[in-house]
Amino acid sequence: MWSNNELTNILDIQYPIVQAGMAGGVTTPQLAAEVSNNGALGTIGAGYMEAADLKNTIRETKKMTDHPFAVNLFVPEKYEIDESSITESKRLLDPICKELGIESLDYSHESSKLEQHIDLLLQEGISIYSFTFGIPSPNIIARLKNKNCILIGTATTVEEAIMNEHAGMDIVVAQGSEAGGHRGTFSKPFSQAMIGTLSLVPQIVDYVKIPVVAAGGIMDARGIMAARMLGAHGVQMGTAFLTCEESGAKPQHKKAILSSSETDPILTSVFSGKPARGIRNTFISKLTPYEDTLPPYPIQNALTKPIRKAAYVQDKPEYMSLWSGQSPRLSKHITARELINGIITDTDKLLKDL
Amino acid sequence: MWSNNELTNILDIQYPIVQAGMAGGVTTPQLAAEVSNNGALGTIGAGYMEAADLKNTIRETKKMTDHPFAVNLFVPEKYEIDESSITESKRLLDPICKELGIESLDYSHESSKLEQHIDLLLQEGISIYSFTFGIPSPNIIARLKNKNCILIGTATTVEEAIMNEHAGMDIVVAQGSEAGGHRGTFSKPFSQAMIGTLSLVPQIVDYVKIPVVAAGGIMDARGIMAARMLGAHGVQMGTAFLTCEESGAKPQHKKAILSSSETDPILTSVFSGKPARGIRNTFISKLTPYEDTLPPYPIQNALTKPIRKAAYVQDKPEYMSLWSGQSPRLSKHITARELINGIITDTDKLLKDL
Repeated sequence: MWSNNELTNILDIQYPIVQAGMAGGVTTPQLAAEVSNNGALGTIGAGYMEAADLKNTIRETKKMTDHPFAVNLFVPEKYEIDESSITESKRLLDPICKELGIESLDYSHESSKLEQHIDLLLQEGISIYSFTFGIPSPNIIARLKNKNCILIGTATTVEEAIMNEHAGMDIVVAQGSEAGGHRGTFSKPFSQAMIGTLSLVPQIVDYVKIPVVAAGGIMDARGIMAARMLGAHGVQMGTAFLTCEESGAKPQHKKAILSSSETDPILTSVFSGKPARGIRNTFISKLTPYEDTLPPYPIQNALTKPIRKAAYVQDKPEYMSLWSGQSPRLSKHITARELINGIITDTDKLLKDL
Repeated sequence: MWSNNELTNILDIQYPIVQAGMAGGVTTPQLAAEVSNNGALGTIGAGYMEAADLKNTIRETKKMTDHPFAVNLFVPEKYEIDESSITESKRLLDPICKELGIESLDYSHESSKLEQHIDLLLQEGISIYSFTFGIPSPNIIARLKNKNCILIGTATTVEEAIMNEHAGMDIVVAQGSEAGGHRGTFSKPFSQAMIGTLSLVPQIVDYVKIPVVAAGGIMDARGIMAARMLGAHGVQMGTAFLTCEESGAKPQHKKAILSSSETDPILTSVFSGKPARGIRNTFISKLTPYEDTLPPYPIQNALTKPIRKAAYVQDKPEYMSLWSGQSPRLSKHITARELINGIITDTDKLLKDL
């Protein structure tokens, strides 16, 4: 089961398990290092990080592990700044700001950090890069390939998987509709790219030659074995690692997942301007009626950032973004080592029972 | 893999594969009999049938097989008749009626056929009953159990699975969001019960003791093995059997599935007033903007019936309901025997490769 796997060979890891590159402080050096130290692939979610923070995080992680780990980066998209939708969003968010004592919200354009981050990461000797929200430019791909780096893309449809392969990605993550957090969709309307993991994986496997990593709803040995049966070479798990002790997710976020049922996480774009799966709460209920009028990502994300931060500090999870996949009933508050070891043990049991 | 399975023991079948009880003429006696003759469980979808038709269908099927087969029935729901929404729906459908030469649409209330069908089916010696859209009354359950019948319920959430078990169902189908045709949801808003099969199955398995049958997106040996790994005792397949030669699905319907990609089937309630997954076409595009104002099931279903029928006769698939799950790329136009035998052969290969 674990041997002779193209994915583990390429990534030089023991088990075909990738810890998702969750952004926003979830992927601490402790989490990524502990995952990599236990035979899987840890990932630093660098999407929102500033250069100095990223550098420190990489160096901290390297102190804690000699094993490879990946860095996840966001591919910037074009977006239009519509002042009227920003004004309207601020107006809608104003009552929540008042409740949390936030004086005003602001949006200032930031240029993409992708090129800058890649310079830094190459200097730091990072050799595994995963990408979300699109495919990086041919120039970036060529630079990374020139340094023998391993590139992991994200696809939510067969077409996106083929585009990733053609662009030169070495591995593609098939993100099913069960997945928590942001949708990686970049080539279709989001609503057309909500394909369940069990449907998506075999259809992608039939169309690409690079190894496919299944993502969305996978939390335990059952999910991993199912993914392998569907033809995936391995799995990526986000929510399962998010509730681990080493994860930097806020305590309220972990608690919300650990006490949720499968019907609680819903798809919403009200936090960031881009569809993501998170646990239903007051913020989502209040903003959903206006979902179609809100500014796009990354504008809405920047506008709501102070709200999410204040909500955490004031312990008001009803205004936090509580990303989760559709399998929260399978979540556990354990260490990353316990999670990985438990999966390996349970997989052996499943195989014996066949 | 195939031996020692509680599901096959209860149903007295060789392989843990159930052909879904698709209504609307798909489940011919030829299809159900051929499925049962090849070691799986055929099902007659009786939801829309009149008594005389059902009786003939059962007798025809019995002539073609000595193996058990199931009959699928709809559990009636309460609904309100709002004349203004009926008038509005007729107005919206009028241009399509004109194009197809339909003079007028009408809705006349029909009482549920459930009790009448059960009388008939007991007389005909049917011993396996599956239910969609809810749980039958305690009285019906007691009558069927008294005759040692096997009852199969449908659930789209963990809560619905538990309700099925508590009501006395012997088996529960876990219908994931990938599934084609109507959602079986009966206890939550439909939008909250769109859980991917890979997430739904293990969460249901952890909460009920009766055998769980996975449904949604399963088309081949990979899907069946995945479902087994997730803890399901077997699978139910609809779309995979719908394109079989013996199926009574309209040629345009089969052709649409066979040429579709995973992004084509979308959830819509415009045909029937109840959410169902079907391939995007002109009818869906035209009616979707008014989806929330249309009358509920079964009113909208009755109103659009002449349209769907005329569209078939006039070979205009753009106005037909083309139900499909999310894995149409895996569909094949073969016989039911070839489908089942292929799955068994491929499963053995998958097991050997482990």
